[in-house]
Amino acid sequence: MKCIAILGSTGSIGRSTLSVAESFPDRFEIVALAAGRNLDTAFEQGRRWQPRIISMAAEPDADVLRSRLKQAGLGKIEVVHGAAGTVKVASLPEADFVVSAIVGVAGLEATYEAVKAGKTVGVANKECLVAAGELITAEARRQGKPLLPIDSEHNAVHQCLRGGRMEEVERIWLTASGGPFLNTPRSEFNAITVEQALNHPTWKMGKRITIDSATLMNKGFEVIEACRLFHLPPSKVEVMVHPQSTIHSFVEFIDGSILAQFSVTDMRLPILYALTYPERIQSDMRFPVGDLRHLDFSPPDMNKFPCLRLAYEAAEAGGATTVALNAADEVAVAAFLEGSIGFDDIPRIIESTVSASNTGRLESIAQVLEADADARRYAQERILVMPKKSAQRRAISVV
Amino acid sequence: MKCIAILGSTGSIGRSTLSVAESFPDRFEIVALAAGRNLDTAFEQGRRWQPRIISMAAEPDADVLRSRLKQAGLGKIEVVHGAAGTVKVASLPEADFVVSAIVGVAGLEATYEAVKAGKTVGVANKECLVAAGELITAEARRQGKPLLPIDSEHNAVHQCLRGGRMEEVERIWLTASGGPFLNTPRSEFNAITVEQALNHPTWKMGKRITIDSATLMNKGFEVIEACRLFHLPPSKVEVMVHPQSTIHSFVEFIDGSILAQFSVTDMRLPILYALTYPERIQSDMRFPVGDLRHLDFSPPDMNKFPCLRLAYEAAEAGGATTVALNAADEVAVAAFLEGSIGFDDIPRIIESTVSASNTGRLESIAQVLEADADARRYAQERILVMPKKSAQRRAISVV
Repeated sequence: MKCIAILGSTGSIGRSTLSVAESFPDRFEIVALAAGRNLDTAFEQGRRWQPRIISMAAEPDADVLRSRLKQAGLGKIEVVHGAAGTVKVASLPEADFVVSAIVGVAGLEATYEAVKAGKTVGVANKECLVAAGELITAEARRQGKPLLPIDSEHNAVHQCLRGGRMEEVERIWLTASGGPFLNTPRSEFNAITVEQALNHPTWKMGKRITIDSATLMNKGFEVIEACRLFHLPPSKVEVMVHPQSTIHSFVEFIDGSILAQFSVTDMRLPILYALTYPERIQSDMRFPVGDLRHLDFSPPDMNKFPCLRLAYEAAEAGGATTVALNAADEVAVAAFLEGSIGFDDIPRIIESTVSASNTGRLESIAQVLEADADARRYAQERILVMPKKSAQRRAISVV
Repeated sequence: MKCIAILGSTGSIGRSTLSVAESFPDRFEIVALAAGRNLDTAFEQGRRWQPRIISMAAEPDADVLRSRLKQAGLGKIEVVHGAAGTVKVASLPEADFVVSAIVGVAGLEATYEAVKAGKTVGVANKECLVAAGELITAEARRQGKPLLPIDSEHNAVHQCLRGGRMEEVERIWLTASGGPFLNTPRSEFNAITVEQALNHPTWKMGKRITIDSATLMNKGFEVIEACRLFHLPPSKVEVMVHPQSTIHSFVEFIDGSILAQFSVTDMRLPILYALTYPERIQSDMRFPVGDLRHLDFSPPDMNKFPCLRLAYEAAEAGGATTVALNAADEVAVAAFLEGSIGFDDIPRIIESTVSASNTGRLESIAQVLEADADARRYAQERILVMPKKSAQRRAISVV
């Protein structure tokens, strides 16, 4: 029986993890949940899974949850809250495996504490590797525990890497769907609407990650994650556009052999892989191999998608640049979604923010959070001086 | 330094093995060669590699080679001949690794003896697994030594299997180019000429294997090889047509993940893999991943290619049926190449020969060879009663 704590239990990855646990009741026990502000879902999860502890983001929510659980005869479930509550969930002695799936920098400290507490951590939170990757992977190495990627690309790489030793890896190739603007001419990018950008061809995801997929920034983040997770320089991490998103990634070995992984596009599969690693167990997530017909590939266009180039540059520079990249992107995407800036302003905001950040090594999660706040402030300021220009540009493109 | 003996050194796989050894002079030493009847090549190989021993198929050739080597100052190389000579090469105490690449049943006994002598064997000879697979794999298990496949498909499977344990395999998928008649209507099969059948779209190979690729019998043999090599029932070995021959095979695991291997179509790659396994070493055989554009797949048509169905049936039946399948195919392909029978007579000859063979377990290589000789005789007799019909059919197809 593997005892699991989930950071971000009410989000998409958290719910998928519970769905996997539901399918294998004699393998997994849910011992701790950190939820956000979704009180009803947290209550339902508490009633269904009866963990030792649940943490809510805000204290008032924790109070309400505590009394609702008590009324339901579940007063034995400890209810905590805030950053300290999340850390308590992450480092619960009874947990063997921690799923890190809180979106944004809010999950950083708890994930770092889980690694420090010697847990095996399944990483779905992008910021853990993009912003704090050097710190977290160094700590996992010290602990001698694996960091298991819970996203389709890095999970695929992890699987393919079993075909050889790390020193036998020539390079890895992350596949990218290419997003909805793969075939849109660069000249039309300034006229892209929010609705168009939210229309992702293969995956149904949250708004920010959908925009990040449209700019290829999501793939850029994945390049940085791969560098941190697999201890590879950016020159050994390539991106290949593959619109069907069937093959999730390749690993090229020094002898010239390449291993690729493919499967259905269902997040429960990398979650199951991480939860059972190094074993595999029978699932019903079958890819219909007999129906396979065409797979297409093309190289990414870094001129059309400057976010990908910016990510490579930040991966190379290290330090606070990757923190700034993530923070500026989050701010810029929010501004785009609100209609304050145009689609092709997103990389402009990011580039100027990253240029202003420093490349010195970050020594603690506190320093990461500080660099993150600085970058957000900087990006916000850049946006304030920008709208007129963008509004003008959008007006021109309509004419 | 790995000491290598090659059975079939003057053939295509033998020469590719020497080319690999040439590229890594500080890793591999060639200690023994078994050549066929190509005296000049055997002499050149002897002069270049100076092995302890060379075996020729025929005694007169051995005598000539011995004196030519002596004249060249290489009298210390022992020259032997015949089946006993090949066995001596296969079981030379100084050899660590034996490459089994003699074409046809001639290589069976020596390969079996190599396995019995505790060598690690790289198998390129189809008959070792199709005709004597049950015997040879059982002996390798007893010895606790791996049998490493030296052909692109099974080598790919071997690599993908590293992603899990054997009991975690749901099924394997061998890819097939589909041969030159993938898109030829079934109704035109009786008019197929030798020249058309020899025109393989992706691989340059010998005549028999090229015809076997055109009938998909080669893929059928590979299904049987895969069953024997990986201890899987035929129901767990599938075939997928993939005209580009880029992906060499897939392995589908029970959790729903699929690993695939691809590389350049160069036999030196699986040879290098087998010679260095479990390590990988740097080679210049790079697949141009950045140039990857389209991969196509489709299910095989067993009605159009009955040889594939016959192979599945023989794999299921076991015993002498797989021996008969191989023997009858060799006889039928030779008859087709001579113009004695039509292209679509090949499966007819095979089917009637296999039906007449028995399914009892073969207990020795001698029994395999006896079943092989019986099947050849039977197939020859079937061909003798057939030509008139075929000639007539070909005449009709011309009209």
